[in-house]
Amino acid sequence: MSIFSRKSVYAQNLILELDPLAETLAKKGKRVIKLNRGDPPRFFPTPKYIIDAYVKALRGGRTYYSKAQGVAELVDAVAGRYRRMYGMDLGGQDTIITAGVSESLLFINNALINRGDRAVLFSPYYPQYIPRLMIEGGRPLFGKLSMTDDWELDVEHLSRRLRKMNGKKQVKYMMFTNPHNPTGKVFERKALQELVDLANEHGILLISDEIYDEIVYNEKKFTSIGQVARGIPHIILNGSSKNFDSTGFRIGFMIVPGSDKVSESLRKKFSQYALVRLSLNTPAEYAVAEAINNRKEHARAIRHMVGEIAKRVNFTVDMLRENPYITVTRPSGAFYVLPRLDMKRLDFKGSRDFVVSALTEKGVQMTGGYSLGAQDHFRIAALPPIDVLEEALTKINDLCIKHARK
Amino acid sequence: MSIFSRKSVYAQNLILELDPLAETLAKKGKRVIKLNRGDPPRFFPTPKYIIDAYVKALRGGRTYYSKAQGVAELVDAVAGRYRRMYGMDLGGQDTIITAGVSESLLFINNALINRGDRAVLFSPYYPQYIPRLMIEGGRPLFGKLSMTDDWELDVEHLSRRLRKMNGKKQVKYMMFTNPHNPTGKVFERKALQELVDLANEHGILLISDEIYDEIVYNEKKFTSIGQVARGIPHIILNGSSKNFDSTGFRIGFMIVPGSDKVSESLRKKFSQYALVRLSLNTPAEYAVAEAINNRKEHARAIRHMVGEIAKRVNFTVDMLRENPYITVTRPSGAFYVLPRLDMKRLDFKGSRDFVVSALTEKGVQMTGGYSLGAQDHFRIAALPPIDVLEEALTKINDLCIKHARK
Repeated sequence: MSIFSRKSVYAQNLILELDPLAETLAKKGKRVIKLNRGDPPRFFPTPKYIIDAYVKALRGGRTYYSKAQGVAELVDAVAGRYRRMYGMDLGGQDTIITAGVSESLLFINNALINRGDRAVLFSPYYPQYIPRLMIEGGRPLFGKLSMTDDWELDVEHLSRRLRKMNGKKQVKYMMFTNPHNPTGKVFERKALQELVDLANEHGILLISDEIYDEIVYNEKKFTSIGQVARGIPHIILNGSSKNFDSTGFRIGFMIVPGSDKVSESLRKKFSQYALVRLSLNTPAEYAVAEAINNRKEHARAIRHMVGEIAKRVNFTVDMLRENPYITVTRPSGAFYVLPRLDMKRLDFKGSRDFVVSALTEKGVQMTGGYSLGAQDHFRIAALPPIDVLEEALTKINDLCIKHARK
Repeated sequence: MSIFSRKSVYAQNLILELDPLAETLAKKGKRVIKLNRGDPPRFFPTPKYIIDAYVKALRGGRTYYSKAQGVAELVDAVAGRYRRMYGMDLGGQDTIITAGVSESLLFINNALINRGDRAVLFSPYYPQYIPRLMIEGGRPLFGKLSMTDDWELDVEHLSRRLRKMNGKKQVKYMMFTNPHNPTGKVFERKALQELVDLANEHGILLISDEIYDEIVYNEKKFTSIGQVARGIPHIILNGSSKNFDSTGFRIGFMIVPGSDKVSESLRKKFSQYALVRLSLNTPAEYAVAEAINNRKEHARAIRHMVGEIAKRVNFTVDMLRENPYITVTRPSGAFYVLPRLDMKRLDFKGSRDFVVSALTEKGVQMTGGYSLGAQDHFRIAALPPIDVLEEALTKINDLCIKHARK
């Protein structure tokens, strides 16, 4: 008899799967360029005004337990942000502060999923949606984004799948990322409206992970689900990690804006989950409150970072397009690029074989499409400076030439 | 059909249950003395050298994702602490850093518990052991500490219960707090040895929550399970919250010291859980590494804090002993006092009625024994200064007189 629970087999992280191998190579003196992870502070120092606020909270003695659901200053700051950016009118109970989106996913899946329940996810997906769902006994029902249609949401395809499923299993929620990880797609209002209508038709809770909502470029405009789903229960996930360049703070926002009964009961339930783990990192909460409230400093910081990201992402796309074994769409949000390999012309056994080869042969660490629901693809987090990207992309090009089928 | 999972009903926190009521009273202008929570930084500022290290990490740009299992500097600091204090030889893989003991409890219960499994807990207990176990479908099998025996572990009683259970259900672990919350008991080596033998006899994993291991006074000496359980799989829980006076950092240590196969597989499994949630608060990890490594500053800080705590706890006990409706043992660890009410001579309907009355009638917030597995008891976190404790204890005395049966 195993000591472990059956569900524990799903506890994994495929984005970090190659980290031990990368560490071993680095220890042997090999140069490893890490393009596997969306960790902005590695390349853009967290703005000084945010650090100053963090220091002030620490020096001011804010090192005790915070209110489990989040300190009022941060909850209010989040409400202000959503009022200004999306015209939403959030009350003090509508936001629960979590230890990153990771913890929001824990609360959501634990609170909603019984064994056998289904949840709609879309391929390609952010890998960490899967373990949290599967650990709770849920199974994904996959919708899809279509690369040939510039990664548009295929609502028609999902509609058919939902009709087929009709009543056989409870579908507890429908979750997607916008701006999208790993494709960089920013969904148009029209597609979101169709999704809202579909969720409404089937009585499915909508969850929009908008952690990259200020990282939008190439002339695109972002629409929050909160602007489209009014009157229909929905949850918005966000946090300080990407927009406020502070992944290592672990501060997420879980927002449940509705005034309906389902939204009301969701807020109460998530509060209970927050109470179970007592507190967040208290000084980080004050830092993020200032990160949001100091609009002038934030505007300056985000403008600089998004400008740089746009350059790096566009450079990556342009350079990949010179590689005859690769096709790639141009992102307009987040900082990922998801190229497709022409596997018929390459001797890799799949996307995992490709990323392992890229790491061991060329010292370039990326994320394989096998972990993203994107066969034959790989993901690049295009955050390093142009010269590093150029070096890495040249190596990827060399790798493809080396592995071309004769 | 409810939107929520069946397990979600167990998401609760009874220590904070009266917080909304206390908040309402405070808003109405009522003075509320909070004795319900073990939150040292509210009364002892986090030592400056720790804050300085935190600030240094922030100013030094350590705001990115940390290694999921914890940064090497902190893992090494924890190993050094256990080598010095308990002669244990920890390797780099033996410690997983968690977001407080709360997150260690999440990892442990999710990784180990299948529906119907049992886990041994001891009454009285720290309330948060229960929801994490129950959410995963587990049920507690209660051992007990006996107040008439100065809260000694009743190993004989547990041995009988385990024999009775024999084989009918899988008993996955045996967890206790030492120094004990809520009784303040520090277990003797002999009692721990008996527990280790019992766990070994039944093949049950031992888990010792030693979060208060430096908060020991009244001439007692603390023994870690790591000193007694050598060769037998065990887990030690600890963290920065209490000994390093920083509850709001959310830094816990989960230590699995064994070289046996079970310990090996536990370490691997918990690492996977750490990877699922990506990262900890990175700068806090560096702060806690320095908190541990700067032994001179720590010795000074802990000596001061424990000296003060001993005075406050002893004052509380002495004053409670003048209350004819209360009996109380004298703690020698942590900072809780767990008095028993002579309910036959009082008109309260139980410990919940008592703590609600204390809050609404006298503005003193405490934790009821109903949430601690300690009927007719209540818990005081004896952290405030003597004059505040005196005011609160006088009010409790008045309350008892007012509610004495005629």
